Formats: sequence, C-alpha cells, structure tokens
Amino acid sequence: VSDARLIERTIGRIEPPDEAAAAAARRALDAKTKPRGSLGRLEEIACAIAGIRRTPELGELRAVVVVAAADHGVAAEGVSAYPQSVTAQMVENFRSGGAAVCVLARRAGAELRIFDLGVGAGTANIAHGPAMTRAQAERAVARGIVVADELAGEGFDVVVLGEMGIGNTTTASALTAALLSADPAAVCGRGTGLDDAELLRKIEVVRGALVVNRCDARDPLAVLAALGGFEIAFLVGLALGATVRSLVVLLDGFITSAAALVAARLAPASARSMLAAHLSPEPGHALVLAQLGLVPLLDLRLRLGEGSGAALALPLVHAAVAILREMATFEEAGVSDSGR
Amino acid sequence: VSDARLIERTIGRIEPPDEAAAAAARRALDAKTKPRGSLGRLEEIACAIAGIRRTPELGELRAVVVVAAADHGVAAEGVSAYPQSVTAQMVENFRSGGAAVCVLARRAGAELRIFDLGVGAGTANIAHGPAMTRAQAERAVARGIVVADELAGEGFDVVVLGEMGIGNTTTASALTAALLSADPAAVCGRGTGLDDAELLRKIEVVRGALVVNRCDARDPLAVLAALGGFEIAFLVGLALGATVRSLVVLLDGFITSAAALVAARLAPASARSMLAAHLSPEPGHALVLAQLGLVPLLDLRLRLGEGSGAALALPLVHAAVAILREMATFEEAGVSDSGR
Repeated sequence: VSDARLIERTIGRIEPPDEAAAAAARRALDAKTKPRGSLGRLEEIACAIAGIRRTPELGELRAVVVVAAADHGVAAEGVSAYPQSVTAQMVENFRSGGAAVCVLARRAGAELRIFDLGVGAGTANIAHGPAMTRAQAERAVARGIVVADELAGEGFDVVVLGEMGIGNTTTASALTAALLSADPAAVCGRGTGLDDAELLRKIEVVRGALVVNRCDARDPLAVLAALGGFEIAFLVGLALGATVRSLVVLLDGFITSAAALVAARLAPASARSMLAAHLSPEPGHALVLAQLGLVPLLDLRLRLGEGSGAALALPLVHAAVAILREMATFEEAGVSDSGR
Repeated sequence: VSDARLIERTIGRIEPPDEAAAAAARRALDAKTKPRGSLGRLEEIACAIAGIRRTPELGELRAVVVVAAADHGVAAEGVSAYPQSVTAQMVENFRSGGAAVCVLARRAGAELRIFDLGVGAGTANIAHGPAMTRAQAERAVARGIVVADELAGEGFDVVVLGEMGIGNTTTASALTAALLSADPAAVCGRGTGLDDAELLRKIEVVRGALVVNRCDARDPLAVLAALGGFEIAFLVGLALGATVRSLVVLLDGFITSAAALVAARLAPASARSMLAAHLSPEPGHALVLAQLGLVPLLDLRLRLGEGSGAALALPLVHAAVAILREMATFEEAGVSDSGR
C-alpha cells in the first residue's frame, strides 16, 4: 500500500471519542466521596480518557514517550542559539539517559523511544524553497502511522509526543503562520534563547519562507511538505495513527502542537484524542492550542521541548485515572452525600 | 516546657533558607544539557528546595501527607453543603484508604498520617464568641510543633499540609479577613458547593464573627484562638516546626494556606520554606498566597481540600529534584553549549 493511500485510509477511519464511555466515567466520579466536580480538571481528564479509550474501566495506563529527531535546513539561517550538530549530540544524550526527557519519563514510569527521522540528513532550507517533496512528507507521516499501530499492538494506552531538531521552532512557526494565516511576528518566540535582534531575524526568515513557499492552507500535507520538518511529519502520522487505535495523545510544547494542528486539519476529530500537557512561552503555542480546543494542564514556563513538559504532566494523567479507579463511593465508605 | 514557651522558642529558632545552597543548585542546573532556565519553574523549585534543605545534594525526597481533622462550631450556622457528621465519616474514609487524598498520596509515593485534633469535640461557634481559648490554641500549635519534630526525626524531607473539617472554609475565611483586614465578601467562596443565597449567608456569618470576636491582627495567636479551628492551629505549629527542622512545607488549598499565613505572621521567614501546590477557586486563597509571596504550581479548579491538591503536585516537586540530581551536564554528555 502506498504512503498516500495509507494516510488517506487512516484519516478515513478516525472517529470521535465514545461519548457513552465518557458519560459513564462522569457518573462513576459523581458517586465518589467528594463534592461533585470538586477535583476540577482532574475529573474532566478522567472522562476525556474514558471517551478516547472507549471504556470507563481504565486500568493503570501504559505510556510511551516518543522523541522524533531530525535536522532542519533552516538552521543555516542562524535562527537557533545552538549549532545544528547539537541535534545529533542530544540524540546520543537521549540514548544514554542524561537528557531532561529521560529523567522525567523515568520518574513518570514511561518508556522512552527515540526515532531518527533525518538527523544529519535533514530537510532543505525553507528560506530558499520547500523543506521536502510531497513524497518525502508522505513517507514520514506514513512511518508515524505504522509506529502508532505498533505501539498500540505493544499495549500502550498513552503516546507522548516529543521532538528534537535544532531550528524546529522556526519550522513550527512557519507551519503555524501558514495554517492559521497568522502574522509571523505573532507566532515566533525566542526558542532556546534568542536575543531581540535574533528574534527579529527569525521573524524575517519565517516571513520569507512563507513568500518563497506560497501554498494552499486547505492542503495541509502540501503546507507540511513546504514548511515542516521530518520529525514533525512523523508526529503528524503518529497522532493520526494513535487516534485510530484509540490511544491518548499527550502533546508537549509548541512543536508537537504544530504537528497536532496538521493532524487536526487532516482529520478534525483527531484533536479530541489529544491532551495538552503545558503552555510554552512561544507565542504560537497558545494560538495552536486555541485552534485545537485544548487547555494546557501546566503553565510552568517550560521551553525545552523533547517531550519534557508532557513527561512532567504524565503523573497528572495517571492521577486522574486513579481517582476514577480507586476512590471509594459514598455508599462504600458510609459517607453522607449532600447531592452536590 | 509550657506550650507558650515551646511556641516562642520555635519562632526564635526559625531562619531563612540557605542562599549558598540555592546558588549552588542554580550553578549545577546551568551546567545541565538544556538551555539555561529552560525548565522554568521546575528549576526554581529545585533551587528553593536546596535552600530549604540547606544543601544542593538532594537525594530522593521522602514526603508525608499530614491530614489534620477537627470539627467547627460554626457548622451550626449552615455554612456547609454537608452535615457536620461528615468530618468523622471522612476520617474513617482516610483510614480505610478510599478518599481522594489517599489515592493521590499513594500514587505520589507519600505516606499519609491522620491526626484527630477535635473530631466531634470541635471548636465553639465563632458566630457567638471565640472558637477556643488562647490556651487551647497554644496546645494545638504546640502539638503541631512536636509532630513536625517527630516527622523530621523519621527522615521525612517534605511535609504536605492537609485538612478535614466541615465548615472550615468559613473559619479560614474569617481568619484571612481578620489578618488581611479584607472584606469577607472578597474572601468567602462556595466551599464544597454553596448556592448564591448560601454564599451570602456565609459572608454574613463571617462578618458577624469578626464583630463578635474583635481582635488585634498584630497578635496572630489571638486571632487564631478567636476565629480558627483546632486542625488549623495544629497546621500552624506543623509549619513552624517543619521550618525549624529545614523541611519543605507543601501547602494544599485555602485552609492550609490560611494556617500558613498565621505561621508567617508569627515568623515571617517561615513562608520561605513553603511551596504552594495549587490555586483554589476560593477567592481568599489568591489573597493569602500573594501575602505569602507564593505562586501556585497548579491551577486545575481543585476545591476538595484534604491535601489532595498538594499530593497531586508532589510529583512535580520530585521531578524538580530529579532534574538536579540525574540530568547529564554538557561536559558529561559531550553536547555543545551555547552559553545561554
């Protein structure tokens, strides 16, 4: 089956969450020994997960943090505080367990998987032309779909999106500006630490990339090919494939959310299988989350990426499900219920 | 030694955190494989804990969730959606492990200790006179100091403040209004689920209590005795005693924060050993946290109390310390450092 056909078939199979399962979780939570709704967003998350997993009977969730890595031709424009060689160095750091996402995934009891989508062999420079061909974009998306299917087969319930790629806040900004018809100045941020002059330069690079790669926002795959990155394309496929397999998709920061936006443009219902872990200081992130209809769990000024913010939020997701599974009901505990 | 003397001596021994330990943690974090400061508040928490524990060499933190329970005479005024008997029923639920705080403490790997400060034998009704005598208030505060000392002796690093007591958002509101000279209407909230008319009634009850129990905000123990609760007084002592023993004090919602406010009025430096876990929808909570100079970690519309929000935030505290302890440095990992 061709990549294009696999993507099309995957999109066609995406369904919204199971409302009946979510409603059953709500009823179960309302019988627990606490005022109705008093655990706020924790209860909402439990209900959302029941809908996504299509059952209110939730065991201990198994989570995998997927870190997709690739290089970006646009790094040649001086849009990052770090040299491009850091992508490969950090992939080594992920493999040896010393990076932030490794520490946080371990603490959260999640497995960590690293995927090299084009480290060294990265995309072309979007300042001068398209990042990749449509066939290359489809190849990376299809690979994400296949990996999601494999992870579902391994028994994971939650897929955490993570990424590494020097220059990829620029790529994500270009994608976001194109898909939302937004001004690059309202989308671009300081990434891993640009100063004022460097931020202005980054905005100009994105502006130029949008002119050079004029494309139709109604064709999200074309936008992805023109302005995206290999790791972003892979994450688009991962989100789509995870949705088809009823897995919870936990977004990290701006870059993974830009990938989620592409997925949601291809299959709007896929956004309903997503949870937003945290709000990044990158201005584009809030714009993307608003489009996806997602409210972040954390707001701790995290701007590292990797999947670190999502790994940090995982214990909240586990806690939400534990409340549903482990709390006593008013009846079991012999506690008087006010009915509120 | 008398209760009053123990309290006085404890206050006299309170010191601010160790700035040198916090600065050493900052230097250690700046050498880790991430842009400087890119883990935002997580890094700030790690530094704060190093200061409080007086060393940047932090092992796995041992945390204990202390739930202090007592009844409140003011419950007779109809200020809660639940009957007073629920305090005792919930204490049973804590003991049998079915309450939210039990589930969340278990998940966070924390021990749970329940203290009965006056369940059944609660305070007098503040609508008609003082909640307790000064001697009773001192007794409960002293007990908290002794328990903090014992917990430090057992090797705990973090004390999580939790509470149970039907009517205690009213008590905490009265305490807060008195100590901050604030309008009760700006402090009182819906607690576990009051409707509009009941909320107005609660505000009137607090207003009346402030008139009946006119007291001098410069004498925090007098205010505590007049308007507090036995569990709140115990938590005041627990916070003071924990600070003396260099333990981290993790606050839950409005009621534990009102206790923290009394502690901070007795010994201002004690506020610097505290972390705020979450922001409650009770309007008084934000006022108290601002006074304490604390910014909450979570904002998830939690309004259950018990220590549930603090237990939920514990994994973030553990994660902050794990970053400091476990991440590789640029040098160890062979990653190029931009110096930013």
